[in-house]
Amino acid sequence: MKDNEYKHNYKLTIAYDGTDFNGWQVQPNAVTIQELLEKYIKTVIREEVHLVGSGRTDAGVHAHGQVANFRCHTPLEIRKFHASMNGLLPKDIRILNVEEVPMEFHSRYSASSKCYHYHLYTERVQLPFQRRYSWHLKQPIDTSLLKQAATLFIGEHNFTSFANEAHAGSAAKNPVRNLYRLDVIEETHGVRLEFEANGFLYKMVRNIVGTLQEVASGKRSIDEIPQIFEGLDRRMAGKAAPPTGLFLQYVNYPDNATKMT
Amino acid sequence: MKDNEYKHNYKLTIAYDGTDFNGWQVQPNAVTIQELLEKYIKTVIREEVHLVGSGRTDAGVHAHGQVANFRCHTPLEIRKFHASMNGLLPKDIRILNVEEVPMEFHSRYSASSKCYHYHLYTERVQLPFQRRYSWHLKQPIDTSLLKQAATLFIGEHNFTSFANEAHAGSAAKNPVRNLYRLDVIEETHGVRLEFEANGFLYKMVRNIVGTLQEVASGKRSIDEIPQIFEGLDRRMAGKAAPPTGLFLQYVNYPDNATKMT
Repeated sequence: MKDNEYKHNYKLTIAYDGTDFNGWQVQPNAVTIQELLEKYIKTVIREEVHLVGSGRTDAGVHAHGQVANFRCHTPLEIRKFHASMNGLLPKDIRILNVEEVPMEFHSRYSASSKCYHYHLYTERVQLPFQRRYSWHLKQPIDTSLLKQAATLFIGEHNFTSFANEAHAGSAAKNPVRNLYRLDVIEETHGVRLEFEANGFLYKMVRNIVGTLQEVASGKRSIDEIPQIFEGLDRRMAGKAAPPTGLFLQYVNYPDNATKMT
Repeated sequence: MKDNEYKHNYKLTIAYDGTDFNGWQVQPNAVTIQELLEKYIKTVIREEVHLVGSGRTDAGVHAHGQVANFRCHTPLEIRKFHASMNGLLPKDIRILNVEEVPMEFHSRYSASSKCYHYHLYTERVQLPFQRRYSWHLKQPIDTSLLKQAATLFIGEHNFTSFANEAHAGSAAKNPVRNLYRLDVIEETHGVRLEFEANGFLYKMVRNIVGTLQEVASGKRSIDEIPQIFEGLDRRMAGKAAPPTGLFLQYVNYPDNATKMT
């Protein structure tokens, strides 16, 4: 059946602990979150659907509020569908919300901004309860230097130096993104970095965090950051921070994208 | 060698995620936390030791600050021992602190009080990040009723009705304990119960939490609590709450028990 014959479009808000999955997107020989969701949607509504995520998350990356949508012919009883899905899914994936949205809604293209959080654990010994959800830094960091360096990333930039290619030759056509904010917030055992932008290039958050860590721990001068931007070369920036600390926190949409008329 | 020939006594403060262990205490055919610690202490100091915990924690129960001690002949380089142990241990067990204490120090008998926290998750859908660390309640609870019921447990009581026998005929000789406080604190996704007492009977916290949940969800009247105490019968109280929500938070000792002269 053709896409334009679909009658309904549903938006899911999903939280997951990415530790035991091979990321969001379907790939051969690996259990992914998208795959499990598509499988159980088929079980519940007896219709094969294609679930579109707002973006991929890599293996080990978590989500507090990933958004995905699927179009189908079957009208859903929202509450029943929601309960059935959470009954079938493993407890490390939870659907937080289900709503019907206009046919035009697309979880990726309709998004106006996305927010990621990254947790740095800065105490000498990491509590076991945070081991899946933070990056344990072995060297001490200078938080005020971290805050100062973070400001250099805010605004509209060409982020080529902070982007990996997802696969050979896949670099984004337009590597300019607008980072609306990069807040550094002190937490009980470390620091949380909050990134909000109109979009993110592949591995952009982890590459920025890795670079910031090098600056804040004294391995690299803060003066290098403008040079890294100018170089437009991934090799100039720091190593990617590990996936454990990263959360896709939420995705924003304009009201008219999600509101049923 | 006889016990009185030991020359040193070391106190360990330990945090663990109990999810993947069969509790604290060594038992046949199961991986326990005590067992792993004893094994690695032997690796590091090349001496077989007996590690005494402040109390057992059951399978799935966590610790923020379990305390244990061992006596040995070998004097330790504290920092080096600490680092070696955390290097060997899996990341779900972390030694937070190591200190030398007087030979008389005993992690259980010297304790002046212990504190447990229990986390109730009261929202409809449980975030995956809390699934190992809280009890997800399916029915809504009345928090003000919970607070009122909690006060009935504070003070010196015979807690027989809230104690299981660890094994047949093992009931504590003296079932009277003094619960100094039972605070009900609202958290982002639910409620935290903080128990501090001069000691706890087997499964006492989980049995109290299970009973409080029945009262706060309207399954049982608050007026039954004094009757349950008077009945001195475990069958009168509620079902034990699951281990996932329970943390041995800290153990207190009088200054002179831990201070080297």
